[in-house]
Amino acid sequence: MDSIRVDGDRLIDFCAEIFMKHGVSARNARCQSEVLAAADARGIPSHGVARLARYIAGLQTGQMLPTIEPRILRESPTSLLVDARGGLGAPVSADTMTSIIDKANLAGMAFGCVRNSNHFGIAGHYAMMALGHDMIGMAMTNTAALGVPTFGRQVMFGTNPLALAAPAGVEKSFVLDMSTTVVTRGKIEVYDRMGKELPLGWAVDKAGLPARDPRSLLEDMFHRRGGGIVPLGGDSELTGGHKGYGLAVMVDILTGLLAGGGFGLDVMDTNVSSARVSHCFAAMKIDLFQSPDEFKKEMDRMLAALRSCPVAEGEERVYYAGLKESESEDKARAEGIRLDANVFKTLGLLGEACGVRAPATK
Amino acid sequence: MDSIRVDGDRLIDFCAEIFMKHGVSARNARCQSEVLAAADARGIPSHGVARLARYIAGLQTGQMLPTIEPRILRESPTSLLVDARGGLGAPVSADTMTSIIDKANLAGMAFGCVRNSNHFGIAGHYAMMALGHDMIGMAMTNTAALGVPTFGRQVMFGTNPLALAAPAGVEKSFVLDMSTTVVTRGKIEVYDRMGKELPLGWAVDKAGLPARDPRSLLEDMFHRRGGGIVPLGGDSELTGGHKGYGLAVMVDILTGLLAGGGFGLDVMDTNVSSARVSHCFAAMKIDLFQSPDEFKKEMDRMLAALRSCPVAEGEERVYYAGLKESESEDKARAEGIRLDANVFKTLGLLGEACGVRAPATK
Repeated sequence: MDSIRVDGDRLIDFCAEIFMKHGVSARNARCQSEVLAAADARGIPSHGVARLARYIAGLQTGQMLPTIEPRILRESPTSLLVDARGGLGAPVSADTMTSIIDKANLAGMAFGCVRNSNHFGIAGHYAMMALGHDMIGMAMTNTAALGVPTFGRQVMFGTNPLALAAPAGVEKSFVLDMSTTVVTRGKIEVYDRMGKELPLGWAVDKAGLPARDPRSLLEDMFHRRGGGIVPLGGDSELTGGHKGYGLAVMVDILTGLLAGGGFGLDVMDTNVSSARVSHCFAAMKIDLFQSPDEFKKEMDRMLAALRSCPVAEGEERVYYAGLKESESEDKARAEGIRLDANVFKTLGLLGEACGVRAPATK
Repeated sequence: MDSIRVDGDRLIDFCAEIFMKHGVSARNARCQSEVLAAADARGIPSHGVARLARYIAGLQTGQMLPTIEPRILRESPTSLLVDARGGLGAPVSADTMTSIIDKANLAGMAFGCVRNSNHFGIAGHYAMMALGHDMIGMAMTNTAALGVPTFGRQVMFGTNPLALAAPAGVEKSFVLDMSTTVVTRGKIEVYDRMGKELPLGWAVDKAGLPARDPRSLLEDMFHRRGGGIVPLGGDSELTGGHKGYGLAVMVDILTGLLAGGGFGLDVMDTNVSSARVSHCFAAMKIDLFQSPDEFKKEMDRMLAALRSCPVAEGEERVYYAGLKESESEDKARAEGIRLDANVFKTLGLLGEACGVRAPATK
């Protein structure tokens, strides 16, 4: 696929202006745009500016409310429960994580839940906010139901990502940011566009048997006729599918159930935009247990050992969680953020429709 | 395989007496025996009384110290760091989880780490201690390095289990208790005893290619010649192996690194017993976010929906994490704990060697 590169700040400005044209405040527009651009910079285009059209459709259809203010429902020195009231996902998430970090600074650790929110981008973005504070950060969200329980044949939970970030010294930080299903819907859509059969172990069809045709799977999932993506570990207990299933439900408990929001089948995308969802965020001070300097030295020792692991025949390199993404980010900072040429073209049209000029390519 | 059933309390008494014959206090002997018997009751024999011989060998070789007292190294209203100083794993773990629950009662949540500990049995046992307190409980431990990073060919981390327990109302509690590798070494050993080829997607050999022969894999892993078990998600990024790899490292960070104990390759089993390991424990009050009654009602609604999910062709039932184990526990309470006849025979010999009579079978 053809791709272009565009300056990160210009890309954020551009997206923010489009959000503002749709009634979003300058601050929230910038916050949401930063999270989208961060996904592209980190090499996760499925959660990047390619989603801008879905956000705008969300704002136009009332799924995402541009000016609503979140409300704090419960609060303690270690916790926070927020009702996002249908606003954009990123601003309420960044604000909640900021409060959680402040609380953790005083109490050692804190945990926050948000309900009635919208798509918040990459979970890792919020977990990483803890890194500069010598804390371990965590973020999770539930999503529209797309995942099928082990031995089932109907979607019952989302792709429910979880993220955990822990700081290192000279090594890149450890940043785990993963959906708890084998893949997300975006990957199924890519196979559909390529007209390719799905790999075994990604999804099951209406009968609960291995799904190979991406088109009919996507349609059956959308109309909830049966079939869906399988949990991390695949479609059987033999390969540990029940573990990924458990992780996905764990995320639903820590987000939807704790927040008092929707969960499981209640969480449903609209025709043009994403479902209302719940998130959770946590931060914990490292110095409750170890001096941060000592901890980071040990992190360096571990992470260096992992990437120095002898490589399997036919492979090139061993990574650790966050390494590839951080290298992609460095490159984006130096050379601009890489976007698919078609995505960039669609962005241009989206801007044109509301009088915002696309940024220059590099 | 032939099996027998034995009364749970009698089994605990028997194991506790053997521990006491090896210098362990009555209280700690009972605590460790309860955790072992709980694993068998829950249908997880790999972590049950079959391990008693390894514990006794640990006590005999000085890997596990029978009378040592743990020491608190750091403490705050939300945290605890404990040095187990080589004592048995279960007593220090149960005591730490008890302290964490007490702290969470006052502060809303708490997190504890233990280092220089030994095998603690099933992680779920400690996570479940939170259930009666209207809390969500969590427990993790690192283990001897048996897991290979995605694209690697050498063990670099343990099977590192994580457990999370959340209470329900009328449904069985949600109890996720899973290793973060596809399988644990016990499963490889079972295939070795049966003389069967390993399923694809469980392990890689010295070259980092799919391993089929359990015997040579076990030997190569033990001597660290290369090869090992792959993370949850299998041996490629296509099926999400990098996610399980990330989870395993996450557990190492939250246990070994935070506790200031060994991690990664440093954690090594002896010839006859288990490695010195680190654990972590957490508890969080549900009423920080929702009334526990309301939360449990919603848990019931979710868990009932999950086990009522339409079943895949050829399958019988959809479970959720903890359901099968809880049903097994009910049966063990009514009919006795089921043990493999050979395991029971070995237990008898172990008892005979130190003058303790085996319990009657039912």
